[in-house]
Amino acid sequence: MARHFSLSGFPEWLPEQRLVEQHVLSTLQQTFELHGFSGIETRAVEPVSQLLSKGETSKEIYLLSRLQAEAGSDDAELGLHFDLTVPLARYVVENAGRLMFPFKRYQIQKVWRGERPQDGRFREFVQADVDVVGQDTLSQHHDMELPLVMVDALSKLPIPAVVVRASNRKVAQGFYEAIGLTDVEGALRAIDKLDKIGEKAVSEILVAEGATPEQARQALALAQIQGADASVADRVLALGARSELLDEGLHELVSLIEGAGELMPGAIMADLKIARGLDYYTGTVYESTMIGHEDLGSVCSGGRYDSLATDGKKTYPGVGLSIGVSRVLARVLGTPLVETSRKVPTAVLVAVMDEEHRRASDVAAMKLRARGIATEVSPSAAKFGKQIRYADRRGIPYVWFPGSPDSVKDIRSGDQVDADAGVWMPPLEDLTPTVRKLP
Amino acid sequence: MARHFSLSGFPEWLPEQRLVEQHVLSTLQQTFELHGFSGIETRAVEPVSQLLSKGETSKEIYLLSRLQAEAGSDDAELGLHFDLTVPLARYVVENAGRLMFPFKRYQIQKVWRGERPQDGRFREFVQADVDVVGQDTLSQHHDMELPLVMVDALSKLPIPAVVVRASNRKVAQGFYEAIGLTDVEGALRAIDKLDKIGEKAVSEILVAEGATPEQARQALALAQIQGADASVADRVLALGARSELLDEGLHELVSLIEGAGELMPGAIMADLKIARGLDYYTGTVYESTMIGHEDLGSVCSGGRYDSLATDGKKTYPGVGLSIGVSRVLARVLGTPLVETSRKVPTAVLVAVMDEEHRRASDVAAMKLRARGIATEVSPSAAKFGKQIRYADRRGIPYVWFPGSPDSVKDIRSGDQVDADAGVWMPPLEDLTPTVRKLP
Repeated sequence: MARHFSLSGFPEWLPEQRLVEQHVLSTLQQTFELHGFSGIETRAVEPVSQLLSKGETSKEIYLLSRLQAEAGSDDAELGLHFDLTVPLARYVVENAGRLMFPFKRYQIQKVWRGERPQDGRFREFVQADVDVVGQDTLSQHHDMELPLVMVDALSKLPIPAVVVRASNRKVAQGFYEAIGLTDVEGALRAIDKLDKIGEKAVSEILVAEGATPEQARQALALAQIQGADASVADRVLALGARSELLDEGLHELVSLIEGAGELMPGAIMADLKIARGLDYYTGTVYESTMIGHEDLGSVCSGGRYDSLATDGKKTYPGVGLSIGVSRVLARVLGTPLVETSRKVPTAVLVAVMDEEHRRASDVAAMKLRARGIATEVSPSAAKFGKQIRYADRRGIPYVWFPGSPDSVKDIRSGDQVDADAGVWMPPLEDLTPTVRKLP
Repeated sequence: MARHFSLSGFPEWLPEQRLVEQHVLSTLQQTFELHGFSGIETRAVEPVSQLLSKGETSKEIYLLSRLQAEAGSDDAELGLHFDLTVPLARYVVENAGRLMFPFKRYQIQKVWRGERPQDGRFREFVQADVDVVGQDTLSQHHDMELPLVMVDALSKLPIPAVVVRASNRKVAQGFYEAIGLTDVEGALRAIDKLDKIGEKAVSEILVAEGATPEQARQALALAQIQGADASVADRVLALGARSELLDEGLHELVSLIEGAGELMPGAIMADLKIARGLDYYTGTVYESTMIGHEDLGSVCSGGRYDSLATDGKKTYPGVGLSIGVSRVLARVLGTPLVETSRKVPTAVLVAVMDEEHRRASDVAAMKLRARGIATEVSPSAAKFGKQIRYADRRGIPYVWFPGSPDSVKDIRSGDQVDADAGVWMPPLEDLTPTVRKLP
């Protein structure tokens, strides 16, 4: 029951669906802050030169122009950002003197890509990123910290369980070089397609690009290795290739997997087919799939850059991950996998006897709001039955009747009791709309 | 001490400034929900035809094009929205069958206008809107409800007091027509400039556009009238002009002012020079200035549309207001008028004895986070003095030392006590960063 959007690729939610999105976004924000990450927002636009600085044209940039731009205007050519990493790199260099390193930041914003829209792929979508950025150096332990932040955040969302899989570019590169495969990037791009096109087709690509059949076999053997402990390294070494870079990568990968296993058993596993083909990572790489929804592809990905940015004098290494919030939400809302306890924030509808007495209802509503109870006053002084129906259609649990004394009716049970707007409280579970997973 | 932005007109905040913005945005969101308004978000883009549908070209639309668009692509021509009202109108018509009316919605999003940047005017900025939209009819009492929602929200922000001023297009139109001034829109546009250019210049414009000097004098006399009670109507009528439309407008305006005065004395006043020159309102109009910062212009404006939207069969009248969040924030942060209790979300930094014992620090941090205490682990196992300095520079109030037993130091007082990470809580005021007005 996927939702039709009036402009293909630009998802919009109904108010009750937006309650779920808000719940997801605030849970992410709270968890990122719980781990000490500072929130930032960057402008939606970057100079096109910045957006293209890594030769990245696959992301289908949207260019801006002003409808009424003066001829010869010297405005920089601007485009909408297609991720939150390019803006982070620019922000860090620009504000380096005013930031403290290592700089831990999260960023939850819309990004735009003019790609052909398809299931789970949008032209406008929300990403939620966490990164830590160092100045000149960045300790290896952050490679374990960052995916654990995401695991903590994802585990609090009303979504199916997510497993984070990690690999390390140094392992792949060291291994490929040791077996004589020199086009490392080409091999990573081919391996990246393994889940989609299968071993045979990947092998054919590798051979077509210059690998021997034996090299292709070995590259595929490496990609088969998965595990949650140090035995992963043993199995890689058992394939026979050795190099310093491979050893370094295996050491980093095993530290990550073992450390994460001690703190959050089962949260992160090694999976050597993770390649992140088109991205420019230099060490650890991450991907994550929702169990039972592997067809969606990765919902949380990232990795380490030895040089996220540089200003000529200093280098800024970084490691981080990004959740594709809209991709997850579209599945959760489209299936649907969740429900909300009501359609509006309102907990109490104050009834209106007749228009002459609307002020009494307004006053009762103010008293309830002053104590944090979301309250609306009935828009019309229709018969009480009709006012109760207004509440019922929206899932508003309580209707308040001003009088001497006032009374409040739980419209689910029909129970009505005398109440004082300066004292009465609904049960905690009725105070705000709640979101729960459907069984 | 205004902040320099690297791209003129596109404000970006440092992490500690973003804490203030987040506080402002979440306060607005909570207050709007307390009044029963549903949050929605609309896509950032609209078809250009929609953006121009009211002949509105003064807002300097940004057009989009795809860097790699295929020749002959049939993509609709898209532009970035310049406000949240045009998207609301489109969203309501599109989803009319799935919404419940009156539809109360709030919307907090960035909008874009390619205008020349100046103090308080940006090319990218955040607006926070509340509107109520009816189907075919919308009761008059919402004209009082909506500004009171904004007064409630604004009064909770760490900003100078804001006064909402209201007028009514029917008063102006009825009055102008009664005195024979037929170019009502032209007169409204001229009166709209009164605060900026003064009476003499406005009078000259009116006369240049066809008014007699006496008509110009009367229009200015109307614009002088202000007040917080029914005497406003008496003073208008004392000017001598009468018409049905004028009477209707005065009745609406007085109901609004008197009703608001009963519920929140002093919150809203009538001010007949409020014209909202370029906008297409049909009844009540609102503007608001921050006391002591009148030079910023209106920070919260809006009004009533008898037909916000129509789908040919049904009409959707609406009334609402919009806060210029970025305009307010730029002033509050630039002066500055506020300060935060610390620069990061973190309440506790867990020290690391040496890299071999980092895991013990990770475990203590997990226990603290599990009880909602924002916690970071020290990025390096430097000398404790250096780790404490890391906390101090960021304003993190507590440093945790794993040991037997663990201990926690309040680095402001220097007090250090034994503590259990499964039990200890900081005082509530240290749990999250707080924002306060500077005296």
